[in-house]
Amino acid sequence: MKEIIAVIRINKMNETKQALVEAGIPAFTATGRVLGRGKGQVHYDILHGAEAGHPEAIAQLGNAPRLVSKRLLALVVPEELCKTAIDTIIKVNQTGKAGDGKIFVTPILETIRVRTGEKDEQALN
Amino acid sequence: MKEIIAVIRINKMNETKQALVEAGIPAFTATGRVLGRGKGQVHYDILHGAEAGHPEAIAQLGNAPRLVSKRLLALVVPEELCKTAIDTIIKVNQTGKAGDGKIFVTPILETIRVRTGEKDEQALN
Amino acid sequence: MKEIIAVIRINKMNETKQALVEAGIPAFTATGRVLGRGKGQVHYDILHGAEAGHPEAIAQLGNAPRLVSKRLLALVVPEELCKTAIDTIIKVNQTGKAGDGKIFVTPILETIRVRTGEKDEQALN
Repeated sequence: MKEIIAVIRINKMNETKQALVEAGIPAFTATGRVLGRGKGQVHYDILHGAEAGHPEAIAQLGNAPRLVSKRLLALVVPEELCKTAIDTIIKVNQTGKAGDGKIFVTPILETIRVRTGEKDEQALN
Repeated sequence: MKEIIAVIRINKMNETKQALVEAGIPAFTATGRVLGRGKGQVHYDILHGAEAGHPEAIAQLGNAPRLVSKRLLALVVPEELCKTAIDTIIKVNQTGKAGDGKIFVTPILETIRVRTGEKDEQALN
Repeated sequence: MKEIIAVIRINKMNETKQALVEAGIPAFTATGRVLGRGKGQVHYDILHGAEAGHPEAIAQLGNAPRLVSKRLLALVVPEELCKTAIDTIIKVNQTGKAGDGKIFVTPILETIRVRTGEKDEQALN
């Protein structure tokens, strides 16, 4: 089993979850609002404003990292669904513009369904 | 060391934390409100209302996944307390009804207490 | 790649992030407010008040675990920046007083930049 953690745009969350259901991913999902700092380190609208020469936008540019609000989606999936889950998340979230987000994969050693005590693959179905 | 992540009912959080203390689990705990989608994919009260024939409840049923608000509890424990921690969480949270939650176990490579620089087992005591 | 999760004082967050940028850590960062229970299990101001003999503070001491509000900072870094990141976090957060926080290190199997599909080290730069 693996945990797939996706940090994506806030307005892509519902579409992503719907696509995962349609792809047959029966995983638990948890979501939260996070503040991320990507490579860009600036709000993209400020950056674009500065590129266009607006003095207000240029004044807000600087060396300090700026935070971009993102949604975090976490799923625990059996090994054989890992690639499908990643491909589904990329398909929905890839716009080609900076800020599309990142996906991290981490190992899960054990999963237990509290109600029944079922473990691992059984606990995920 | 392992991290134990439990997704449990909101109203079971205090009892769970108290039981862990009584079981001698000295771990760091972090909590948060999460939105989960379990196997059921519906609020159980809507489901029960629909089963009972209430039209308002039936109208709310559908194919879209619905989110259930849950609490997330995370503990980092030394290897030898892992089973005790899991058993304690199950004992408090197992009601036998859908929605009892899930437990995930992940590996922790290193733990450091910032104040002293102590590592691993020493940092957890 | 590794994920470094630091649970630190709320008022140390900005300084910590700035120090990481200056140390050349290009990682994604996510932050959140968490409730932690450390070894001390009491609010330090209550503890100090009780030590000073104030009856209101003594009345609040007990066996139940108390929660201390903390900030959580998570970074995914390439292997060779792991030690630098940890040292930087310790340097900013080590005051020598209880409540300085903890650092946990977990394995990351895969990182993907959604926009380009780049993987691992390329996705982190």
